[in-house]
Amino acid sequence: MIVLGIDPGSRYTGWGVLEVQGSRLKYIDADRLVLGDGAHEERLVLIFDQLSHIVNQYKPQVAVIESVFVSKNVQSALKLGQARGACLVAIAKHGVPLFEVSPRLVKKTVTGYGGATKMAIGDMVSRLLSIPNKLSVDAADALAIAISGSSMVRSKI
Amino acid sequence: MIVLGIDPGSRYTGWGVLEVQGSRLKYIDADRLVLGDGAHEERLVLIFDQLSHIVNQYKPQVAVIESVFVSKNVQSALKLGQARGACLVAIAKHGVPLFEVSPRLVKKTVTGYGGATKMAIGDMVSRLLSIPNKLSVDAADALAIAISGSSMVRSKI
Repeated sequence: MIVLGIDPGSRYTGWGVLEVQGSRLKYIDADRLVLGDGAHEERLVLIFDQLSHIVNQYKPQVAVIESVFVSKNVQSALKLGQARGACLVAIAKHGVPLFEVSPRLVKKTVTGYGGATKMAIGDMVSRLLSIPNKLSVDAADALAIAISGSSMVRSKI
Repeated sequence: MIVLGIDPGSRYTGWGVLEVQGSRLKYIDADRLVLGDGAHEERLVLIFDQLSHIVNQYKPQVAVIESVFVSKNVQSALKLGQARGACLVAIAKHGVPLFEVSPRLVKKTVTGYGGATKMAIGDMVSRLLSIPNKLSVDAADALAIAISGSSMVRSKI
């Protein structure tokens, strides 16, 4: 099973692709979309187009995204919501089933601790998937979301 | 010039189409998309698909949306942001130039008063465009946004 994890953001959107074989996880690819400083709608089209491309390239059977978002204020929540909206439309337009996992569950699945730091998550993701090169924070978060989603999906099937 | 106004929402998204000839405004069509109670991503795909259909049908030269959003809290801001994201992707994917107007300017252009009520806006929209039948609040808001955007676009050209 190929799993795509997504970590939406209005400046950077992280994505990561895993292959799940039983309890074995295999790293396929991960990166972040760099969305620049253009108009809202240009960035959202970048998200839509590039995620569409990733879906066509890796053909995930499942996509995973965080369910609850933490946001400083209403303005940043709106921006995050817009980015998330573009991600969801891209995924759903391609007919890929979507699962949501809470940020706390992501941290807990990956590190064993629901309050883990970004750095601890990045370290554990690299270790769990034997990734030699350094990942961006957004890519590591997306892989953590994919890992957490994989174990949730497995327990549901 | 054909102008499409959009009033995004996660349950209902209003839309309205006007034709602008000099200072004359002609009502073409308006309604609201009823998005139901399904999963987030299903509603966003409905927004994307139905707005795409509206753009193909009426071929607007300009789309207008409100620039600043008022929201009760972070959770509702995220939902509104998602709906707005789906609207922006649909519009921008079709290459329609997008203008943003502030909610205050919309009220002021339509009623002469920046703090006007929804009801006052609906009444003025019906009167300005000589619409005999009753519009939903969302459709009237979308037409108000289109009217406000039209006068802004005219002043820029």
